[in-house]
Amino acid sequence: MNVLVINCGSSSLKFQLIDAESENLIAKGLCERIGIEGSKLVYSPTGGEKIVIQEDMPDHTKAVQMVLDALTNSEYGVVKSLDEINAVGHRLVHGGEKFACSTIITDDVIEAIKECSDLAPLHNPANLIGIDACRKLMPNVPMAGIFDTAFHQTMPEEAYLYGIPYEYYEKYGVRRYGFHGTSHMYVSQRAAEMLGKKPEECKVIVCHLGNGASVSAVKNGKSVDTSMGMTPIEGLIMGTRCGDLDPGIIEYIAHKENKSIDDIMKILNKESGVLGLSGGLSSDFRDLEDEFAKEGDIVGRRALKTFSYKVAKYVGAYMTAMNGCDAICFTAGVGENGPIIRNFVCDYLGYMGVELDQELNNKRGLDLIISTNESGPKIMVIPTNEELMIARDTYALVK
Amino acid sequence: MNVLVINCGSSSLKFQLIDAESENLIAKGLCERIGIEGSKLVYSPTGGEKIVIQEDMPDHTKAVQMVLDALTNSEYGVVKSLDEINAVGHRLVHGGEKFACSTIITDDVIEAIKECSDLAPLHNPANLIGIDACRKLMPNVPMAGIFDTAFHQTMPEEAYLYGIPYEYYEKYGVRRYGFHGTSHMYVSQRAAEMLGKKPEECKVIVCHLGNGASVSAVKNGKSVDTSMGMTPIEGLIMGTRCGDLDPGIIEYIAHKENKSIDDIMKILNKESGVLGLSGGLSSDFRDLEDEFAKEGDIVGRRALKTFSYKVAKYVGAYMTAMNGCDAICFTAGVGENGPIIRNFVCDYLGYMGVELDQELNNKRGLDLIISTNESGPKIMVIPTNEELMIARDTYALVK
Repeated sequence: MNVLVINCGSSSLKFQLIDAESENLIAKGLCERIGIEGSKLVYSPTGGEKIVIQEDMPDHTKAVQMVLDALTNSEYGVVKSLDEINAVGHRLVHGGEKFACSTIITDDVIEAIKECSDLAPLHNPANLIGIDACRKLMPNVPMAGIFDTAFHQTMPEEAYLYGIPYEYYEKYGVRRYGFHGTSHMYVSQRAAEMLGKKPEECKVIVCHLGNGASVSAVKNGKSVDTSMGMTPIEGLIMGTRCGDLDPGIIEYIAHKENKSIDDIMKILNKESGVLGLSGGLSSDFRDLEDEFAKEGDIVGRRALKTFSYKVAKYVGAYMTAMNGCDAICFTAGVGENGPIIRNFVCDYLGYMGVELDQELNNKRGLDLIISTNESGPKIMVIPTNEELMIARDTYALVK
Repeated sequence: MNVLVINCGSSSLKFQLIDAESENLIAKGLCERIGIEGSKLVYSPTGGEKIVIQEDMPDHTKAVQMVLDALTNSEYGVVKSLDEINAVGHRLVHGGEKFACSTIITDDVIEAIKECSDLAPLHNPANLIGIDACRKLMPNVPMAGIFDTAFHQTMPEEAYLYGIPYEYYEKYGVRRYGFHGTSHMYVSQRAAEMLGKKPEECKVIVCHLGNGASVSAVKNGKSVDTSMGMTPIEGLIMGTRCGDLDPGIIEYIAHKENKSIDDIMKILNKESGVLGLSGGLSSDFRDLEDEFAKEGDIVGRRALKTFSYKVAKYVGAYMTAMNGCDAICFTAGVGENGPIIRNFVCDYLGYMGVELDQELNNKRGLDLIISTNESGPKIMVIPTNEELMIARDTYALVK
C-alpha cells in the first residue's frame, strides 16, 4: 500500500510517497511559496534526479495537484495513476485533549481539529487547508490524521498541569500538551528495538534537538513528560525560541521597552534562543559550532553551553520522572549531527554511568549506540523519521 | 557580641537579638501593621512570657524605637542599655550582581541597593527604610547587609542566562539571581557538618519548601544553580505563585480574559500555586494535607502531587548539574513538617538509591537524617535559621 504523507504549512507543503509494507521511500518533495510570487515544486523520485518545477501556486489545491501530476508523470513519475496512491497521512499539529492517537479523517474529525485551532492558531488552519485540498482531488482515498500532540496524551496529571488556577485548565484547556510527538514515538520505539526489547519494557529519554527542540520521557512505550508545553515555546532553548523563562521577565521587559505582550512574544519566538544568546550571530547550530572552534570564542560557547546544560537538566529531571532510564537518544538536525552538543550534554551525566565512545560520537547519519559497552544508560543517535511513522499509522488505520 | 537581626517589609519588621558567640537567641519579635491603623509589637524574650504592645507606629523609625525600648525595658528587657547591642544585621532581598557576599553597610552600599530596586520593587525600598530607621536611632552601631541573592552569585553563566537576546542581560540585568540564599547557605553548611565533611567536600541539594519555595544545587559550598529566577515567581509551584510556566500562557490568558500583563502577573503571584491548583481551597499545605487524608479526595492530591513532582524533577536536574550529590535536604515550613510531601518526592528518587526510614520521616523539628543507612544520597530534614546565618555573617564582618 502506497501512502502519501503530507505536511502542510501556511505557504508550504512537504510530501513523501512511502510503500507502507516495505517502508521504502518512493519519492519526496516540497512546494514552496504557495500563494506567494515565485512558487515552485522541488520533486525527488528515489534513485532519480531532483526536478524543480516553477509554476504559480495560488492555493494549496494547486500545490497538491502539481504533486499528484509529478508523481504520475509519464517521464519522471513513480506511479502509473492515482489508483496507486492508496491512502494519505496528514501531519497535524494540535489535537488538544481530543486526540490521543492517530485517526481516520472524517467530517467530525475536521470539526474537532477546528475546535483545537485556538491552541495552535498558526498551524491547525494550515493543516486543514491541506486536508481540504487532498479531499477535493482524491475524494475516494482514505486519509488519516497524525497529531504532534497525540503521543503525549498519556502524561499524568502532575506532569501536564501548571501551577495556575485550575479553572484555566477547565475553561480554556491551559495545560502541557507537548509537540514533536511523532518523532518522540518513532525514536523511542527504535531505541527499544536497538536495546533488543519491546517498547513496553523500557524507559527512554528522547532529545529531539532541531531548530525546534524538545525532550521527552517515554516509559514503557508511553510519554510521561515532555519539555514543550501548551505551546512550542516552553522547555529547551531553541534556534530562535526562548524556552523556559521566569514569567516575571515578560512583565519586566514589557515595561522597560514599552512593548505589548504580543511584541514581547514575537521577540521570544523569533529573536531569542541561541540566536539571542549569541548576540544575533546565528540560530543555526553549525554556525555556532564554527564560531566555537575559533580561538578566543566566547559567544559560540555561551550559546552552545547554555543550550546543552538545559538539555542535560531535562535528562536528569526525566530520569527522576521515570525512576531511571535505559537509553538516552539524540535525534533531529542538531541531535543527529552535533558531536559537540552530545559531548557537552553527556559530560554532565557521568554520575549515572554514562560514557561516550568518542570515535562513535563523531560518526553521522546512522542508528548508532555511541556510548561504551560499560555505559549505564546507553547513548544513541537515531535519525528521526516522522514521515515513516505517519505512513505506518496511516497504514495501520486504513488496511 | 549581641547582633540585632532585622527583616524589614513594607508594613512589618521582624527581629531577633542573638548572642553571636554562643549563637543563643536572646529575644525575638515582630512589628505588624506599620503605618496602618491597629499596629502592634509582639515581643518574646527567651525564657520569658510573650508580650503584646499595641501602639501607633506611623513609620519604621517608631517601630525600631519600640523594639529597642522593649529590649532595654527595665521589667521585661534582655539588655541593660543600647550599648549591649553591638551590631545590626539587615536581611536584604536583591543585591543584583553587585553583592556576592554580605557587606558592611555604608552610604555607597545604600546607593548600590537603591540601584537594584528595579529588580525587587516591593522589597528593596522596604529594606532601605529599615536601614534608615536603625541608622537614625543607633548611629554608631555597625551594620551589615545580608542579601537573599548573594549566595547564588557563584552560579556559572550557563545556569544564570536565559534564552533571550543577550542585550537584555547587558542592558537590564535580566538573568537568574535566585533567592532564599541565606537559607540555602545555612542548610547546605549544616548538611556538610552532619555528613562529617567540610562544605568544600560535598554536593548538596537544598529543597527550601515554604509558602515561597526554591531548590538549589550547592557544590563544594557554592551555589551552582537554583530554581527561582530573576524574580521569586519562577521554579517550584508555591503557596500562591505559579512557578515555571509556558511563556505562551501569559499571552493566551491575557487575550482570553482581556487582561493586562500586570493583571495576569497579579493572578500568577497571588491566586496561583497550590491555591490555584486546589481550585481555591488553600495555599496552606496543612489544609491540603487534611484534604488529602479524606476519602475520595481529588483536589488535595492534585495539588500536593503536582507540587512534589516538580520538586523531584528539580532534584533530578540538579543531580545532573553537579554530576551527583551526597545529600538532599528539606527545610522551611513545608519541608520541615511535611512527611507526606517528603514521601511523594522521595518516591521518585529510588533509582538513585534513596530510601526513607518511615519512622524518622514522621519526626519533626530536629536536624535529622531520615533515610536508611543504605540510602544513596542521604535525605535530611534541617530546620532553616536565616536569622542565625545573618548574625554569623554580621559578626564575622564586624568583630
